[in-house]
Amino acid sequence: MLKVIVKNAETLDRFLKKYFKDQKYSNLIIPMKYGILTGGKKIRSTIILNTAKIFNLKLNKIINICGAVECVHSYSLIHDDLPCMDNDKLRRGKPATHIKFGESTAILAGNSLLTLAFEMIAEKKYNIKPNVKLLLLKKLAECAGHTGIAGGQFLDLSYEKRKINNLKIINMQKKKTGKLFKFCCLAPAIIAEESNKVKNEMSFIGEEIGFLFQITDDLLDIKGNKKNIGKPVNKDRKKGKSTLINLLGYNKTLEFAFRRKKMLINRLKKYGKKSNELIETLNFILERTY
Amino acid sequence: MLKVIVKNAETLDRFLKKYFKDQKYSNLIIPMKYGILTGGKKIRSTIILNTAKIFNLKLNKIINICGAVECVHSYSLIHDDLPCMDNDKLRRGKPATHIKFGESTAILAGNSLLTLAFEMIAEKKYNIKPNVKLLLLKKLAECAGHTGIAGGQFLDLSYEKRKINNLKIINMQKKKTGKLFKFCCLAPAIIAEESNKVKNEMSFIGEEIGFLFQITDDLLDIKGNKKNIGKPVNKDRKKGKSTLINLLGYNKTLEFAFRRKKMLINRLKKYGKKSNELIETLNFILERTY
Repeated sequence: MLKVIVKNAETLDRFLKKYFKDQKYSNLIIPMKYGILTGGKKIRSTIILNTAKIFNLKLNKIINICGAVECVHSYSLIHDDLPCMDNDKLRRGKPATHIKFGESTAILAGNSLLTLAFEMIAEKKYNIKPNVKLLLLKKLAECAGHTGIAGGQFLDLSYEKRKINNLKIINMQKKKTGKLFKFCCLAPAIIAEESNKVKNEMSFIGEEIGFLFQITDDLLDIKGNKKNIGKPVNKDRKKGKSTLINLLGYNKTLEFAFRRKKMLINRLKKYGKKSNELIETLNFILERTY
Repeated sequence: MLKVIVKNAETLDRFLKKYFKDQKYSNLIIPMKYGILTGGKKIRSTIILNTAKIFNLKLNKIINICGAVECVHSYSLIHDDLPCMDNDKLRRGKPATHIKFGESTAILAGNSLLTLAFEMIAEKKYNIKPNVKLLLLKKLAECAGHTGIAGGQFLDLSYEKRKINNLKIINMQKKKTGKLFKFCCLAPAIIAEESNKVKNEMSFIGEEIGFLFQITDDLLDIKGNKKNIGKPVNKDRKKGKSTLINLLGYNKTLEFAFRRKKMLINRLKKYGKKSNELIETLNFILERTY
């Protein structure tokens, strides 16, 4: 694992643990913490922190955004694993939340993490202008709701065991995965109050990174090692899930992904040294084995 | 039904229909609209609008708060009805969302309504100061998440078929129902930038109204008519749910509720004519037969 990813994941875990400690106690805290703190690379947070470097943002201007994104991501994983969704029993090498705590508790813990994401951004103590916070909240809602993750998951389920064309698969994956990655690169530019041109550039880069992340996930489902990735492999094919690989084949998909990565790195190079960490992460994303 | 409630419900439905029309299309819009627009008294919105009258707030300063509260409420009903939760097939006299659209779609539509609630408050076009919007967002998150509705539902499920004391039941109902009612009376006072004293008073009144609403729901579960209330009766007892009635008996609970209503009306009278509508609604809540 890349050193910078490990370091960022540790920073995030410390932030989240403190945040949970400061929350009023409820019985859902334990399953919520299980869903968000049990392993995971926190790759989205690393992308946010890498991008924040490009715009010289200090940690206290961005850490709550990382926390909120991880809450949204964990909520979506907990719900995706449910029996009526993807029916996965294993997540990050451990029992999925509904296996560990039961279905109703998993649903409620997921809902509570989603809610907490918005609370984290609205919180007074983080040093972001109120109007900027509201814009971030609106953008995050668009990533999480029916136009984003929830909408993408609906399409993913409805495409199972059907022949779906290329464009539709890409559109579904953009909603399910791409939008939140897009937000990860856009949010630091919004906080730094960059020009629309820069914000559009960062949105594009974020969405493309998300796309590459999804492709690697699909590739790992075929060539990955169950022990490494912490969940069963070959489940997409077994479930008749629509992926690019099912359409283009393994090698063509890999080739396609490397071409897009090269294009992205060229774009990032114009930010000079400040973009080095994001480029490192980008390389990791496509070469990861878990 | 009270005229003012019908009128307010119509206002809300118009607002929500327009809001959904302005959203980007997704396949989840139909089940979301089914969950929020199919019948329902929209009693929470009426309480918000009644309270807004006390503080002379215009509709465009409060309508998005009503919408957000209805989104949160509908999301919680959709999820409560799921097989792994309360397993109810009927809601407002119609098939529950998961019966109509399937379980996974119901979960995703619920999640999307919860998300939309926060988007509705963050939206630029509503005429509320940014800092006030952020405070409202934070308060609503506290009502919806693990310290509110989701936490209350967890307790409710875990209390089934167990002997639970009075205080614990009241605490569970405060989370599951009370907090959102509290928000309904508090939000207009926050927007009107009233003193802490007034805000505390409104919080108290809201929470008490929620408590009375819950008691009436429990009473209706015993003496109500399935056709009127649009869902099966006697389900609490069948499920071994903990309610005040199971502890105090029907008559003592009714007596207790009327005493508290009288106390609340006395408090509200000091706002003069401006509180008339809220008092009317309060009377309706305890006397309703559905």
